[in-house]
Amino acid sequence: MTRNNLQDAADTSPSKERLRLWLRFLKASRAVESQLRANLRKEFSSTLPRFDVMAALSRYGDGLKMSQLSGVLRVSNGNVTGIVDRLAEEGCIVRVAVPGDRRASLVRLTRKGREEFDRQAKAHEAWINDMLGDFSAQEASDIAQRLEQMEKSLHGDDD
Amino acid sequence: MTRNNLQDAADTSPSKERLRLWLRFLKASRAVESQLRANLRKEFSSTLPRFDVMAALSRYGDGLKMSQLSGVLRVSNGNVTGIVDRLAEEGCIVRVAVPGDRRASLVRLTRKGREEFDRQAKAHEAWINDMLGDFSAQEASDIAQRLEQMEKSLHGDDD
Repeated sequence: MTRNNLQDAADTSPSKERLRLWLRFLKASRAVESQLRANLRKEFSSTLPRFDVMAALSRYGDGLKMSQLSGVLRVSNGNVTGIVDRLAEEGCIVRVAVPGDRRASLVRLTRKGREEFDRQAKAHEAWINDMLGDFSAQEASDIAQRLEQMEKSLHGDDD
Repeated sequence: MTRNNLQDAADTSPSKERLRLWLRFLKASRAVESQLRANLRKEFSSTLPRFDVMAALSRYGDGLKMSQLSGVLRVSNGNVTGIVDRLAEEGCIVRVAVPGDRRASLVRLTRKGREEFDRQAKAHEAWINDMLGDFSAQEASDIAQRLEQMEKSLHGDDD
């Protein structure tokens, strides 16, 4: 996808350079995600949304309500529900009652789910390390910091 | 959305730095896209998918078949159809017959559509320039080049 015209290579105004950087960000992100999807499918018969759900739950050992999980993932509740149902069938996720709230339940990883996620997360880190290998650890740290600053200057409500 | 654990700040192995960079890429991209969505809605009563459709058509003055347009955008044909229908109602897009193929048609921007897209693209460039303003033109150019290299090393079929 292209949000503007990349062909005008002669134009090197700062705003055009930043626009090109943004388009590169988008393209690079999509290329990495596409590779991650392929790897997850091939190595774990899984998908990026499933990985993301497990990653979110791995950070909240006590579990999350469905609405919280959707909030963390920023995807629609409907999509998350299907993924959670499937992971529950596979024994990777369990629904537990919320004390004092009979209508609500939490979802959390089972031991099997944690072990499965740990395997996938380790592979995921190795894939990223491979794909982003052109960036030295120092460069990666520097650019990450710049991006963090950029985010903060954009708006404070995005975390 | 978090693809792994950002909390482990003490761990600074190269692979962890690259993983952090990737997570920052994702977060920053989403923050920028979120701001773009808000700006498009506020300034032009429009959306990012609409902008993307017009941007794609602006690059192909002779028009694109629907399947080509979907291919360029990498979104589902169903979604593109609704967007194209709406833009056609508004007079920004027109469907034209394909010579020699009675069942196919091309969609292309009308003059009104081109003028509207030019306005939006100019604003879009200014927004990006503002949001990525922390990066000097030289830095933007350098990082964009590194990202392009990264993409090329990932796979050759992604452009």
